[in-house]
Amino acid sequence: MKYCSECGHQVVLKVPPDDHLPRYMCVSCGTIHYQNPKLVVGCIPEWDGKVLLCRRAIDPRKGCWTLPAGFMENNETTEQAAMRETAEEALAEVDILAPLALVSVPHISQVHLLFHGRLRREQFGVGAETLETALFNQSVIPWEGIAFPSVRYALERFFEDQRRGQYGFHVTTWRKITAP
Amino acid sequence: MKYCSECGHQVVLKVPPDDHLPRYMCVSCGTIHYQNPKLVVGCIPEWDGKVLLCRRAIDPRKGCWTLPAGFMENNETTEQAAMRETAEEALAEVDILAPLALVSVPHISQVHLLFHGRLRREQFGVGAETLETALFNQSVIPWEGIAFPSVRYALERFFEDQRRGQYGFHVTTWRKITAP
Repeated sequence: MKYCSECGHQVVLKVPPDDHLPRYMCVSCGTIHYQNPKLVVGCIPEWDGKVLLCRRAIDPRKGCWTLPAGFMENNETTEQAAMRETAEEALAEVDILAPLALVSVPHISQVHLLFHGRLRREQFGVGAETLETALFNQSVIPWEGIAFPSVRYALERFFEDQRRGQYGFHVTTWRKITAP
Repeated sequence: MKYCSECGHQVVLKVPPDDHLPRYMCVSCGTIHYQNPKLVVGCIPEWDGKVLLCRRAIDPRKGCWTLPAGFMENNETTEQAAMRETAEEALAEVDILAPLALVSVPHISQVHLLFHGRLRREQFGVGAETLETALFNQSVIPWEGIAFPSVRYALERFFEDQRRGQYGFHVTTWRKITAP
């Protein structure tokens, strides 16, 4: 951020009065521009014990497998976001059953929220950001080709919960691994 | 938003190619400025079955009772956000036990996430945005003076769960009530 989105003048990075973190502040109109984490919301679409994965047509992690998920939009609920992303990326309709996993991703200022969903019918396709979609049993999940740690985490918890016959809500942090 | 925060030129509101919603786009450099919901994170700080509430010193709902909560900051986890807000607003240290409630608030593009926390000691105070803090049993909660529906929802679920001796994770939507 270099310019004030309200008046077009320059901004400077400094700690406002009564605050404790530096913010972008306009040198002209004084507007403080707060920047906050973004919510990425999606679901595990289940059909008859199998889960629907999408192979990514775009970077990052193009060619890898993921769950339908994306940035939540203004004026929608988390459940609506998960249903919309599933419709967009997998051309599939789901009912949202329950929240399954919450993953903080502090190094990129994101929070990932994955629901357990159920496909309304065995019908899905390939959205603009997807190369292919397919249903997988646990035994054939392409674990080596999963796009993101938060997707892997949600899938692992899902199959564990499926095995014990009770679904929980699981919280973790995905930390960037830096070389020692 | 009136000006591009990258180059200072004007923005227009229009649907970008391959998108389905209008975004602020710069007429000069073409940057697309996405706007997304904000996460408000906090906790129910418990001490010996009682919960710590804060009376708000600021608008909105100045003078009403709330839970320590606020906008999540970049580069922190949800648990860190809840601990930080409790330290700032109630000068209290908590351990985060488990997520308790998730409330979508689509009319103001927010998502509220409340954890169940435990005070490390019976010690709390009054932060800059707080008039007073106090521990309440369920029977003396000032229900008529609770600041926000999401706080009321979290407190109601908390005491229900406390009664049955098992804490769950509860999801709802706070919808704006409009006159018929």
